[in-house]
Amino acid sequence: MGETISRLRVRYVETDQMGVAHHSAFLAWMEVARTEYLRSHGVSYRALEEQGYRMPVLSLSIRYFAPARYDDELRLTARLLESNGVRFKFEYKIAREPDGLLLSSCRSEHAVTGPDGRPKRLPPELLSIIGDGSEEP
Amino acid sequence: MGETISRLRVRYVETDQMGVAHHSAFLAWMEVARTEYLRSHGVSYRALEEQGYRMPVLSLSIRYFAPARYDDELRLTARLLESNGVRFKFEYKIAREPDGLLLSSCRSEHAVTGPDGRPKRLPPELLSIIGDGSEEP
Amino acid sequence: MGETISRLRVRYVETDQMGVAHHSAFLAWMEVARTEYLRSHGVSYRALEEQGYRMPVLSLSIRYFAPARYDDELRLTARLLESNGVRFKFEYKIAREPDGLLLSSCRSEHAVTGPDGRPKRLPPELLSIIGDGSEEP
Amino acid sequence: MGETISRLRVRYVETDQMGVAHHSAFLAWMEVARTEYLRSHGVSYRALEEQGYRMPVLSLSIRYFAPARYDDELRLTARLLESNGVRFKFEYKIAREPDGLLLSSCRSEHAVTGPDGRPKRLPPELLSIIGDGSEEP
Repeated sequence: MGETISRLRVRYVETDQMGVAHHSAFLAWMEVARTEYLRSHGVSYRALEEQGYRMPVLSLSIRYFAPARYDDELRLTARLLESNGVRFKFEYKIAREPDGLLLSSCRSEHAVTGPDGRPKRLPPELLSIIGDGSEEP
Repeated sequence: MGETISRLRVRYVETDQMGVAHHSAFLAWMEVARTEYLRSHGVSYRALEEQGYRMPVLSLSIRYFAPARYDDELRLTARLLESNGVRFKFEYKIAREPDGLLLSSCRSEHAVTGPDGRPKRLPPELLSIIGDGSEEP
Repeated sequence: MGETISRLRVRYVETDQMGVAHHSAFLAWMEVARTEYLRSHGVSYRALEEQGYRMPVLSLSIRYFAPARYDDELRLTARLLESNGVRFKFEYKIAREPDGLLLSSCRSEHAVTGPDGRPKRLPPELLSIIGDGSEEP
Repeated sequence: MGETISRLRVRYVETDQMGVAHHSAFLAWMEVARTEYLRSHGVSYRALEEQGYRMPVLSLSIRYFAPARYDDELRLTARLLESNGVRFKFEYKIAREPDGLLLSSCRSEHAVTGPDGRPKRLPPELLSIIGDGSEEP
């Protein structure tokens, strides 16, 4: 399933009065990384929603190793970690360019539901990416 | 139509590396003030949306006189400024407690639409607040 | 050490196009709950920062059980979970009022540093709350 | 002084329950456009802050013509509109790609201050961009 790399710069609005990016900004970046992961595998999450799918977050865990600063260029790495058919997990690394310093590592777990919030089978596009649910360690 | 006062504290996430609340936080506060204005006049904006109304922002103007700092208690004053039957304007003052220092004044202009974004007549609850569209200077 | 309860309403800006509060909003609420926990124990986090302390987040874990919706009134419960003298953990519950439905549970781990990001001993105000670092399970 | 074009995609976190980007997201995008404008003219706003300058927003006005949707690619155009030596104004256009539909036009007015918030003369880098304060219509 590989991994997908995307890049962005820390925005001023994402900083807080500690002089670094607020810890909640990392969640927005993970979401960007997830969108780009899906796009690079031929899946538009926007199209998935238009077809009646939602992928709400069930849980998150995130560790912060070093701060991100305004205007830093970040390198986001996302990969689909595992799936059991109705849920799946992503793993992310957030690193600073150009020195590659690892700032954060994170995992998110998702369900697939319809617009009503009820569980729904994975859409075929996603199934083709993640296969039959066998884990990739 | 009077005015409605609500209060909130500046959140840490709302600060930026200038050590003050980011200027975009004021828009979120104006939105809180608008919700509370409507509530105090017997109108639930949440219920309005459930009944098929939307009130998108058409324009905003805002002046910043002094910064808001983390944990400052703010006093938000909102009033319905005018309506021409299909659009309406709110005016806001954002002041710091307890000294009352005026931090910002703002205006927002709104349309009323359906979920599809098409113009829609003002809902009866709003009409009863703002009357026949005569302006209040 | 007890726990502290605070309340807030979900803001419109916190919703996303799933029609519920975005999962990153919960981090801002946890931060509000932490500020209020400290205040209720006689500690102003704002004053701590002015005295040269910072409490950056080292890690977060959060589970989402049910969505929060615009204008929902939320009940935030925070407690200081443990400390080993240089780090400490908070635990949070986010529930919906008035039915008390548990929406989320979360933990955050913090360091104490100076403005330069270097580790610093806990400030006396905090030490007096959390004692000698003995854990409370 | 010309104008600078930058591009970004609408993030999921920027949407609200109307199914479009929240109106406050446009302020974050304007800020990105301003940073890129300065960078394209050889000025790093990050470096300016490190040298003791701040450029707080004094006022904003913004008009919304059409909504921005999740994953839309946006084209941001920024230009320095005028300066009177101690204040300056930026103008922005936010358009949707690839059809070029204009979504929003905005202006922001800024002061130059030191970290203490007191007025300060424009830094030389900025003066070289904006000249002697003569207006460009």
